[in-house]
Amino acid sequence: MQVAYTPAEIAAIVGASRTAGSAKLKIRDIASLTAARAGDLSFLGNAKYKSQVPASGATVLLLPPDYSGEPKPGQVFLYVENPSVALAKLCARIEQSLWPKPPAGIHPSAVVAPKAKIDATAHLGPLCVIEDGAHIGAGSVLQASVFVGRDARIGEDCWVMAGAVITSTCSLANRVRLQPGVVVGSDGFGYEFVRGRHEKIPQIGSVFIEDDVEIGANSTLDRARFSRTVVGEGTKIDNLAQIAHNVVIGKHCILCAQVGISGSTTIEDYVILGGQVGVGGHITLAKGSKAGGQAGITRDIPAGAYVNGTPAIPFMLERRLHLLQQRLPDLFKRVEALEKK
Amino acid sequence: MQVAYTPAEIAAIVGASRTAGSAKLKIRDIASLTAARAGDLSFLGNAKYKSQVPASGATVLLLPPDYSGEPKPGQVFLYVENPSVALAKLCARIEQSLWPKPPAGIHPSAVVAPKAKIDATAHLGPLCVIEDGAHIGAGSVLQASVFVGRDARIGEDCWVMAGAVITSTCSLANRVRLQPGVVVGSDGFGYEFVRGRHEKIPQIGSVFIEDDVEIGANSTLDRARFSRTVVGEGTKIDNLAQIAHNVVIGKHCILCAQVGISGSTTIEDYVILGGQVGVGGHITLAKGSKAGGQAGITRDIPAGAYVNGTPAIPFMLERRLHLLQQRLPDLFKRVEALEKK
Amino acid sequence: MQVAYTPAEIAAIVGASRTAGSAKLKIRDIASLTAARAGDLSFLGNAKYKSQVPASGATVLLLPPDYSGEPKPGQVFLYVENPSVALAKLCARIEQSLWPKPPAGIHPSAVVAPKAKIDATAHLGPLCVIEDGAHIGAGSVLQASVFVGRDARIGEDCWVMAGAVITSTCSLANRVRLQPGVVVGSDGFGYEFVRGRHEKIPQIGSVFIEDDVEIGANSTLDRARFSRTVVGEGTKIDNLAQIAHNVVIGKHCILCAQVGISGSTTIEDYVILGGQVGVGGHITLAKGSKAGGQAGITRDIPAGAYVNGTPAIPFMLERRLHLLQQRLPDLFKRVEALEKK
Repeated sequence: MQVAYTPAEIAAIVGASRTAGSAKLKIRDIASLTAARAGDLSFLGNAKYKSQVPASGATVLLLPPDYSGEPKPGQVFLYVENPSVALAKLCARIEQSLWPKPPAGIHPSAVVAPKAKIDATAHLGPLCVIEDGAHIGAGSVLQASVFVGRDARIGEDCWVMAGAVITSTCSLANRVRLQPGVVVGSDGFGYEFVRGRHEKIPQIGSVFIEDDVEIGANSTLDRARFSRTVVGEGTKIDNLAQIAHNVVIGKHCILCAQVGISGSTTIEDYVILGGQVGVGGHITLAKGSKAGGQAGITRDIPAGAYVNGTPAIPFMLERRLHLLQQRLPDLFKRVEALEKK
Repeated sequence: MQVAYTPAEIAAIVGASRTAGSAKLKIRDIASLTAARAGDLSFLGNAKYKSQVPASGATVLLLPPDYSGEPKPGQVFLYVENPSVALAKLCARIEQSLWPKPPAGIHPSAVVAPKAKIDATAHLGPLCVIEDGAHIGAGSVLQASVFVGRDARIGEDCWVMAGAVITSTCSLANRVRLQPGVVVGSDGFGYEFVRGRHEKIPQIGSVFIEDDVEIGANSTLDRARFSRTVVGEGTKIDNLAQIAHNVVIGKHCILCAQVGISGSTTIEDYVILGGQVGVGGHITLAKGSKAGGQAGITRDIPAGAYVNGTPAIPFMLERRLHLLQQRLPDLFKRVEALEKK
Repeated sequence: MQVAYTPAEIAAIVGASRTAGSAKLKIRDIASLTAARAGDLSFLGNAKYKSQVPASGATVLLLPPDYSGEPKPGQVFLYVENPSVALAKLCARIEQSLWPKPPAGIHPSAVVAPKAKIDATAHLGPLCVIEDGAHIGAGSVLQASVFVGRDARIGEDCWVMAGAVITSTCSLANRVRLQPGVVVGSDGFGYEFVRGRHEKIPQIGSVFIEDDVEIGANSTLDRARFSRTVVGEGTKIDNLAQIAHNVVIGKHCILCAQVGISGSTTIEDYVILGGQVGVGGHITLAKGSKAGGQAGITRDIPAGAYVNGTPAIPFMLERRLHLLQQRLPDLFKRVEALEKK
């Protein structure tokens, strides 16, 4: 973690109500109760793991007020109202020290076109390329080697990591976070088959990403044929996901890694898709629907439904069919026996 | 879309034979009949949607000559022979104004090795890296931060978008288009298992991409072990696809997003693979064959065949088996009833 | 291949014990016996293809000592103890001449922070960005446009290809090879659902990649929530793979293209996963286990087991069930016949 805190510093950060034991080691990492070694901090987040505390090798332990037991020599118990909340506080502090917001300004190696508008409080790291008419909002951070195309727009307090690409006319609203290598605004995959050849259909729309969206490393989002491809407020997309042209994703969805959404499909608010799920084109996954990993969704899914399998069917039915399939060898034998009667 | 056309300008672009109504608003976007609002253009591409025209909020509508009806106040009807063709004309015009061909020349921030040959009419954008012996042909555009390795060759009128990587000795023919982040010529995935370790097998071949190919964002194409990995003329590959070493893809194929093709497989002309399809190694998908989304192809597929499922079987059979599987609960009950007789 | 060897040069490289025939052409490529043409080298790697030798169009052929037959005019036979080993020697030589190790030094366009430590024998290509506290070890090569974040560490003799990203505090040990576009250390995909919104859980761990690992183009490896995401010694990962936070991968594994591993899963030594395999979170694939392409693994897999399908079950059972499923139409008919009795 590249950080080191004394037990006393941690007690202050988490607001410990009481301390027991003492330790000279600094804390350099966090680990589970069973994995923790000297120099690690651990925590009792769930009472059911209480029995793991005495054997834990952690140097500092975050424990609830009612935990009874004594620290070993060289071990510190910090009593806190809620160990999970205390851990979150500590992690947030570490996060800040690991990735402090870089200072405002434009690195001299960045290539900024004359008609780009860069807010004075934004940070443009080394070797970023900003084309004419692009706009980078207040407090936004472009880490390094980020490309922002003509007339593209980055709102306020966005973080755009190394090597991400935002092509022309696409927009990020505020507090959007793009992990390294994300591509926003590649051309939609649209061709017309004319005399034995696939002729490109112009893709003249754009991509609009609303507030508080996060998109994982090397994911790709295509611009719309016309109008916009949209990712709704607060939605989180994992690595290597593919969002095709004219897809509209609602608010607060979770799309796990390697998901692929085909063109013109609508994903309503609060939808959750497991890893490697594929969704066909021109369909609607209604509000709050869910799909298990690797599901292949070919039809509309009603609100709140949970589907699985390829093609996707209701989860419980899919589970039941899967079990029956495993009994097929037996079924064949039983039918044979009946035929011999 | 960052553009604005008056209805009269649009009438001129699409060659309208007749105009009805008038509007002061400029057209800034295109939308379907039902989604269009003031400032949008829409179109009646298919007669079956005729009933949606009267309620459409579009400011300009492209309609066939035989459409009967009157524009609302502030609305313009443009009559054209074929509204879909007219729309395509308009989109092509918008495309040109959004992405005009950048002027010839080498951006001063590009790093061009002394023995690279850059045609005087090519455009090298900011921060491109061109190694020795590489050749960039007439009229080709490298947007920004593109890497072209030693002795690689980009033909004429190619468009290579931000962050794409073409490694040494690989070739693009003419009019090839690489979306952002494409990798052409990563090492093939070949190892020999020797005394408990995987030893790398040298991957000394290259990748050859023929005329008019387009490859989607962040897709990867491995160089051959020896000889060449090939993508045939006019083939279109979507985002996040994986093409392994020594794969040979024919002409005018369509490979949808997240497809993966294993090593030494041959895909003949006019093959179409749905999203997330996986294809095993050392097999042949014959001319014009097709596979549904997420299919897993483990054997040769005959010409013109349409397969589905994992492992892939003929499409109609797969559909039938899927339906029978859904009737398994019933079948188990029926067998039980027979046994009780 | 951009190389040209005379038959005599090849005889010397492979250590031929005897030569027959003569040819003026230089060898510019390597091909299989049936595909080889004039100017190609081919080889008899397996005695069962012996009958293909007489018709082969290769200019030079590597043959075992006991091969009987005569070269055609303009063709050279080189007799070697083991043609496959001889070929490997030749390929290694070609590899060296195609990709010689670039000289030590830092390209003037690279952006190196004052507190970064670059070994004097390392090669930093054009437009690399190295942040403060990062360390690049002896003999390592960063091709071009590589990003190395704060306090990250690259060991000795690593090759990091164009556009790869290693984020802050992550580590590569020695002789690690990253293909273009790899992202090491993107944030783990972790959120807590609070009052209708997904709140980001700080991801303050890192990624540790052990000796002799190779990672394919555009693959992504997330940093741990805390502690480390690990890829063990000698493991090889193909293109477009996704490794989530806190995954621990053992030594000498093979992960084929587009594999996705969910968070906190353990992959023990010598595991082999086919293309597009998905693995759920918080499970263990024990030593030497294997999964077929597109398998979806949802539970622990015992040592040495071979699984297939989604959800994954033992390979032979999955194959058997697949065959029985294809006989379902027949089974339905048989049950119907029994019911009519």
